Formats: sequence, C-alpha cells, structure tokens
Amino acid sequence: MTGYGYPPTLQRIIDLLRRVPGVGFKSAQRIAFHLLKMDPQQVRLLGEGILELREKISYCGRCNSLSESDPCPLCLDPLRDGRKLCIVEQSYNLYSIEKTGVFDGRYFVLQGTLSPLRGIGPEELGIDKLEQILSCGGVEEVILATNPTLEGEATSLFLKKILQSRPELHVTRLSIGLPIGSDIDYADEMTLQKAFEKRHDL
Amino acid sequence: MTGYGYPPTLQRIIDLLRRVPGVGFKSAQRIAFHLLKMDPQQVRLLGEGILELREKISYCGRCNSLSESDPCPLCLDPLRDGRKLCIVEQSYNLYSIEKTGVFDGRYFVLQGTLSPLRGIGPEELGIDKLEQILSCGGVEEVILATNPTLEGEATSLFLKKILQSRPELHVTRLSIGLPIGSDIDYADEMTLQKAFEKRHDL
Repeated sequence: MTGYGYPPTLQRIIDLLRRVPGVGFKSAQRIAFHLLKMDPQQVRLLGEGILELREKISYCGRCNSLSESDPCPLCLDPLRDGRKLCIVEQSYNLYSIEKTGVFDGRYFVLQGTLSPLRGIGPEELGIDKLEQILSCGGVEEVILATNPTLEGEATSLFLKKILQSRPELHVTRLSIGLPIGSDIDYADEMTLQKAFEKRHDL
Repeated sequence: MTGYGYPPTLQRIIDLLRRVPGVGFKSAQRIAFHLLKMDPQQVRLLGEGILELREKISYCGRCNSLSESDPCPLCLDPLRDGRKLCIVEQSYNLYSIEKTGVFDGRYFVLQGTLSPLRGIGPEELGIDKLEQILSCGGVEEVILATNPTLEGEATSLFLKKILQSRPELHVTRLSIGLPIGSDIDYADEMTLQKAFEKRHDL
C-alpha cells in the first residue's frame, strides 16, 4: 500500500520537469518546492516566459541561430565582418564565442552534427542554406568551430570536403590542445597527443 | 568587448531558473534549450502549470501540508487512524513516508525546524496549531519524524518537552542506525555510534 501523493498541480510540474535530461526526481522536486516559496511575481514571469518562449523564438532564416526576429540582429548588424563565417554546432556555442568577444564575423549554426546512425544527414544540418550564403560571395574565411568530439570532427571533415569545391575560401579549424589552467597529469591522452603534434616554436 | 547574447525571452527564462538553489548557469541553459525542443503542448502545460501552482496550492489549515483544498484529503480521510500523529519537518517528508505505506495515521507539518539564529521560533513552526489538534483529543501516540540532523534533533527535543505536559501521550522518535544496503566502513561516526547504542537482541 502506498498512501497520499503530492497535490495534482504540484505532481504535474514535477513530472514535466523530470523530462528534462539531467533533471532527476529529487531535482524536479527541489525546483517545484522552490517555485512554491519564490516571490509570486517572479513565478508568474517564469510561467509566462515559458509560454512565450515557443511563440516568440524561432530560427534565423539565414544563419539558423535562435532568434526573436528573422533575420537575426547579428545577421543584420552592418558592423560584423562578412568576410569571416564561423560554423558552430548549436546556438549556445555561438553565444559562448560571442561572450569572449574574440570574433567579429558572422555565423552559421548547424543545429547538430552529422550522425548517420541517428538519421542526421547534410539536409538536417542545413548545408543547402550554407551553400546559399557562400554563393552570394563575400566570404573569404570559413572557421570550422564544431566540438572536438568524434561527431564534431567527422562533421568538420565533411564540411572541409564540401568547401574544397570553392578554392577561393580559406578554411580553418579551432586549435586543439591543453586548456589554460589545466594540469598535464589530468589531460586525456588524445588532448595531450594533439598538444604534442601541434607544438610550436617559442 | 562581448557580442550578442541570447534572445531576451530565452535569457529571461535562464535568469529565472538560475535563482533556484542548486541550478547553475549551465543547468539553467540546458533546461531552457530543452524547453525549446520539447513538444509545444508539454511546454504549454508546464508554463500554465507554473502559473496555476501558486494560485491553487496552499496549506492545509489543520496539518499544514501542501494542499489544493483545506482541509487536505488526508485530514478528511475517515480511514486514517487519528490515534497516531506523525510530526515531520516539510511536506515532502510526508510524501516520502506515504510512499512507503508504513504509516496509516495523520500528520503535522512543521514547515521547518527550530532555528533561533534564523529567527524561526515555536510560532513559525505552528506549535499553537499542534496544541489545538492535541486539545481536541483522540491522539494517543505522537511520532517525532524530524530529520536526524542537529536542527532536527533540537526541534525533536523541544517538542518532547512541550508534549511532556500531556502525560496521556506516548511520544516516540524514528530509530537511528545503519541504513539498509550500506557498508559499516562508509558509515559516519555518529551513525555508527548510535547503531551501537541502540543495538538490540536477536
């Protein structure tokens, strides 16, 4: 025999939160209980925000990044250097790069990586859209900024092959090596191996 | 210089989620991105559910547990044994006990523990409400089910003192010892000490 459970409204929130990858039952419970204690105005904003999220946010028709407008503000910004195009896997990679302020060009978001097993082919990555951008001209360098994972590397190699048909393009890839602040003892073998291969004169 | 950030709607959700204790920026970002990929109908339910949460859920006027009605269904259930009253710290403790199905009595939820430093005294724990329940008569056993922490123990001792003025009550406390499936090597000193003190004949 098991007895009484949470009130239905609360149970529903816990169940919905549990569907988020990485959120277990205890976390979902903690979030739900926190919502009950939070300032009601803040909770209202959160609830309304979630309802708005799917209505307001879609993808930029040009670069595929998350945006409330199409084209996105970044694509419309005349101060960005259209000669450089950085290709990332996901929108949050774009925002991570933007936070550093190191890049002043434009982006193209793949919305994933090539994965034949999961049925993700060139069409799903919007390669035709990418071709369109390149056909309009003006791009001189394409920076492949996919993640240094197996899938990211495979996607990067695939893109390199496609881009070879455009000899006017300079295709580059983010460097791989030891992260700053890390310890050689804790570096994984692959990273350490790459750091040796790519060593440079001082 | 830092560049473009998330669209405002998305950034607002991330900021609100980050206020939940234990949810950092990366988790908040992961949840927000998951919401963008989730079935729109589910997202709508979540948003509406959060809006409803604060309107529909309040506390049972008798036992102080979270409830959509007052008195709560558990307090109204004629099949529960009114002779036993279990005192817990929080509503989720009540639901954890209910899940085991081991207890068929009624509850009283303190909504916290005694903590003079944080200004939580007997009034904040609703001790007057507890006295009211006991004054109505019928309760024979009070089970102190506060957590085996410093604050839980202090609150339990405090309740024991109050209840001593009612000699008709049998006051008990959940046993403390080694959890099932654990290893003596990994038990903390206090638990192991208690397990020895409370050892029993076989």
